[in-house]
Amino acid sequence: MSETYVGIDVGGTNIKIGLFDSELELISKTSVTTDAEMGPEIVIKKMAQTVEELIAEAGLSLQDIVAVGIGTPGPAKYSEGIIIQSTNMPKFKNVPICRMLNEKLGAPVVFDNDANVACWGEYTVGAGKGVKDMVFFTLGTGIGGGIVSDGELVHGCDENAAELGHMIIYPDGRRCNCGQKGCVEAYGSADSTARRATEAIEAGAESSLKKVLDEKGKITSKDVYTHLAAGDKLAKEITDGTAKALAITCINMLHTTEPKRIIFTGGMIAAGDVLLNRIQDFFDEYIWTLKKETVEICFATLGEDTGIIGAAALARHAKQQGKLK
Amino acid sequence: MSETYVGIDVGGTNIKIGLFDSELELISKTSVTTDAEMGPEIVIKKMAQTVEELIAEAGLSLQDIVAVGIGTPGPAKYSEGIIIQSTNMPKFKNVPICRMLNEKLGAPVVFDNDANVACWGEYTVGAGKGVKDMVFFTLGTGIGGGIVSDGELVHGCDENAAELGHMIIYPDGRRCNCGQKGCVEAYGSADSTARRATEAIEAGAESSLKKVLDEKGKITSKDVYTHLAAGDKLAKEITDGTAKALAITCINMLHTTEPKRIIFTGGMIAAGDVLLNRIQDFFDEYIWTLKKETVEICFATLGEDTGIIGAAALARHAKQQGKLK
Repeated sequence: MSETYVGIDVGGTNIKIGLFDSELELISKTSVTTDAEMGPEIVIKKMAQTVEELIAEAGLSLQDIVAVGIGTPGPAKYSEGIIIQSTNMPKFKNVPICRMLNEKLGAPVVFDNDANVACWGEYTVGAGKGVKDMVFFTLGTGIGGGIVSDGELVHGCDENAAELGHMIIYPDGRRCNCGQKGCVEAYGSADSTARRATEAIEAGAESSLKKVLDEKGKITSKDVYTHLAAGDKLAKEITDGTAKALAITCINMLHTTEPKRIIFTGGMIAAGDVLLNRIQDFFDEYIWTLKKETVEICFATLGEDTGIIGAAALARHAKQQGKLK
Repeated sequence: MSETYVGIDVGGTNIKIGLFDSELELISKTSVTTDAEMGPEIVIKKMAQTVEELIAEAGLSLQDIVAVGIGTPGPAKYSEGIIIQSTNMPKFKNVPICRMLNEKLGAPVVFDNDANVACWGEYTVGAGKGVKDMVFFTLGTGIGGGIVSDGELVHGCDENAAELGHMIIYPDGRRCNCGQKGCVEAYGSADSTARRATEAIEAGAESSLKKVLDEKGKITSKDVYTHLAAGDKLAKEITDGTAKALAITCINMLHTTEPKRIIFTGGMIAAGDVLLNRIQDFFDEYIWTLKKETVEICFATLGEDTGIIGAAALARHAKQQGKLK
């Protein structure tokens, strides 16, 4: 009998599933469409069938599965295994996903939100490997977060901790989708980076990005970094705004849970060193002088498999901690 | 044999020592002058002698002591039991206080910084009782902090977590003693409350506080609250600045470790409801609308014995967790 872990990463469009051995080495993986409009019964049945197919193809049996890990967007009652609701999957309301999967596969199911799962993946085998205290940011449409403190994910009193995109860094600043003003998400996300550039051009700023806006009708954060590389002044200002917001947030996290490593992921890290170096510059400029800080700020390394790796890693961790139900 | 815990609270002026039973009920307590200029050998010898006297007076013996808890200001290597240095006790450099006390008393010694110790006291038997996730702020000359996450203090990678006074809420704002700009400490501490009032008057603001400044040569935060009660407009503005800074920080902590309860302590809580209500007002105004938050913001309840209660509670917790060395 082999010790096998299953990692499932549920997105609004696709569900990724991977099999891993006890060292979290990938055995095999696949991706199926979510088809969320079919409702939870059918979607979860397809998940289980896909796992069974992967298991059979690998020459394993369901009895080899020690535990299944699964990540979904919130809100959910993770400790109870229930999806409360989902923006991308409107038919998923109060779905006991862990129990349903467990009934089909026989193995215990461990459940957490997608940001925590990705955080745990990086922590276990990615950029966070070797530390016990880590903070994790996903830079996408919004900014998600995860915190590992003394070797455990921080969940908070209502399983809603590490909403790090909604830390306020400019009180009375830019309006955020969450209803607050001045959230780091309103400055440092991919979307808000693009939006700040767009607004500046519409307000009359000179920039090579104007042509992009005129031709495509919109600007992306990728455009901003491309034009930054080409020397555009506005692109530099916008990038500085993004980097400063993220750096201030790094400082605030350092003074909170004191991570040894702070890791960024998401589409925007494709910008590379030009972004990372500016975050580090602003961090160095704004951090206190009381003591020299040795926190490492870096980018994630796991790429597109983070979700399945993290989910399998969470399942293995629950096993190791004797917490499988 | 009774199960007895000793709590020691080391300040620059006085050392408070208390004996507690297994329910953390106070058996007896005393206070001696620190006399830090005598150096660590003599000071720690006096600590041990005072404990021995309390034990004898209570009809107990040293064998009844399960563990000793001690809190001091930082910086220190708490897990190694060593005071690195101390502003108030310049002769205390690289002092292995835990080993020295252990040699004199025979019992294991548990050590943490004064803010964490006070936080743990409130968590165990004070305003934090009954929750598993809590955040704690001390409002004094500066702002100290403590975080309890899932029933454990957060220490961070370098035992320097929860420096919550140095979260930046106004980038490029008021200069803080730590070298950063815009720390909550530069707005929300007792000292900065008084200083902002003083600066406003010196800049020509009209206020009944001007007479205080002219006569005493300085304003305290207590003066600000007294004049607020009497209807002074500047005192209201200054208090609002304090309360808003603290409220934004509460919001940021909610989005970080998601406490169920946020507790303030320190001299400034003598201001009472006039301050607490304004913090709650700003919290309600600035918090997101995505979900209704049920975090409770309140004042500490243990008063002047917090330090010895917290130290004894930490010692008992280490015993309960099987972590006594």
